[in-house]
Amino acid sequence: MPTPALMLSSQVLPAFLLCSTLLVIKMYAVAVITGQVRLWKKAFENPEDALRHGGPQYCRDDHDVDRCLRTHHNYMETIYPFLFLGLVYSFLQPNPVMARLHFLLVFLGRVVHTVAYLSKLHAPIRSLAYTLAQLPCISMALQMVWEVACHL
Amino acid sequence: MPTPALMLSSQVLPAFLLCSTLLVIKMYAVAVITGQVRLWKKAFENPEDALRHGGPQYCRDDHDVDRCLRTHHNYMETIYPFLFLGLVYSFLQPNPVMARLHFLLVFLGRVVHTVAYLSKLHAPIRSLAYTLAQLPCISMALQMVWEVACHL
Amino acid sequence: MPTPALMLSSQVLPAFLLCSTLLVIKMYAVAVITGQVRLWKKAFENPEDALRHGGPQYCRDDHDVDRCLRTHHNYMETIYPFLFLGLVYSFLQPNPVMARLHFLLVFLGRVVHTVAYLSKLHAPIRSLAYTLAQLPCISMALQMVWEVACHL
Repeated sequence: MPTPALMLSSQVLPAFLLCSTLLVIKMYAVAVITGQVRLWKKAFENPEDALRHGGPQYCRDDHDVDRCLRTHHNYMETIYPFLFLGLVYSFLQPNPVMARLHFLLVFLGRVVHTVAYLSKLHAPIRSLAYTLAQLPCISMALQMVWEVACHL
Repeated sequence: MPTPALMLSSQVLPAFLLCSTLLVIKMYAVAVITGQVRLWKKAFENPEDALRHGGPQYCRDDHDVDRCLRTHHNYMETIYPFLFLGLVYSFLQPNPVMARLHFLLVFLGRVVHTVAYLSKLHAPIRSLAYTLAQLPCISMALQMVWEVACHL
Repeated sequence: MPTPALMLSSQVLPAFLLCSTLLVIKMYAVAVITGQVRLWKKAFENPEDALRHGGPQYCRDDHDVDRCLRTHHNYMETIYPFLFLGLVYSFLQPNPVMARLHFLLVFLGRVVHTVAYLSKLHAPIRSLAYTLAQLPCISMALQMVWEVACHL
């Protein structure tokens, strides 16, 4: 496969793409875990699924399934903006060391967040991990606004 | 309108943009359907909406509305990552035939998933459609990690 | 910081990046507000958070927290597609005045929507703001499908 021009246009982009794609894969893993917990706890949200797996009484809520769903939901609130912010930020010629530090903090924060959520770790570990991952996102957003405002 | 340079940079990008934009339009359609089902079943989630449409007793849950919401929610879990993965993947000079096959599977899987969800089709049609659409996304993600890891 | 090539490739992109990044920052603000309302109303969704803030009885639902969550959820349904549509649309050489009008309507519609949701304004202000922000998104999506279909 030839070297894509996109990759060479930035020293920063490969680091972003690695972090972001691994986070998407991790999100897919949470979805698979949710499905497995549903099967294990026999707790389905659709009557047609419950019927296939034992009967209509299994169309019900479950604490562990809800925890998986909240983990996934928090992912959507945080990773999707990062996919956008990080991609644009990578093209704004940021300092490469600073940029990689931003991406690394998001990645580490989100990994710890998922582990803390699914393992029910004591508060405030999960909240601190959430904040750790949000700070570089806010930093990127503010830098983008500043950079763009200078070009309007 | 002149030919955008972006379009010509890849044989693959137009196919991705067509599939992805049609899926976004389909997601908008699910949102409209949800609103219509709310009006038809008189089931609103905000007191101010219920007051406007008959009274506070209509601020309530409804099975059909919940089904629309779950369809929409599943969309957000699956389409948003595809928008990111497919866009970046299109710039990584993939084999055009393979790339179009990836996009087509995502598109078909998601169309069948929506129809199966809203029409309450027997399990496991919906789950199979979900898996059909997720497999090419996972494939793109793994190819991206591999490609990027070679450039770090 | 040198002028990024990306910025110069389009007269439209800076306007999009400004609107979209400000909307992401506003979404982050809604998340912070949700957390503060949780602390103020003592209504947590995880037992470990409730234990840290007074006891297991505070793991409960609350109308005001639910309203914040719905505001955030509606954001995810509408802003994320806009981040994708607007970015691609900016590269399709649209009429600059029309493009900026699209972005401005999305921005204003979403600001009014958030204010109307959190302030419990009378219906149909919130719905009208939602529609105002969705129309330019649908317009961009249709223009993209048209443009791309001409290049397939």
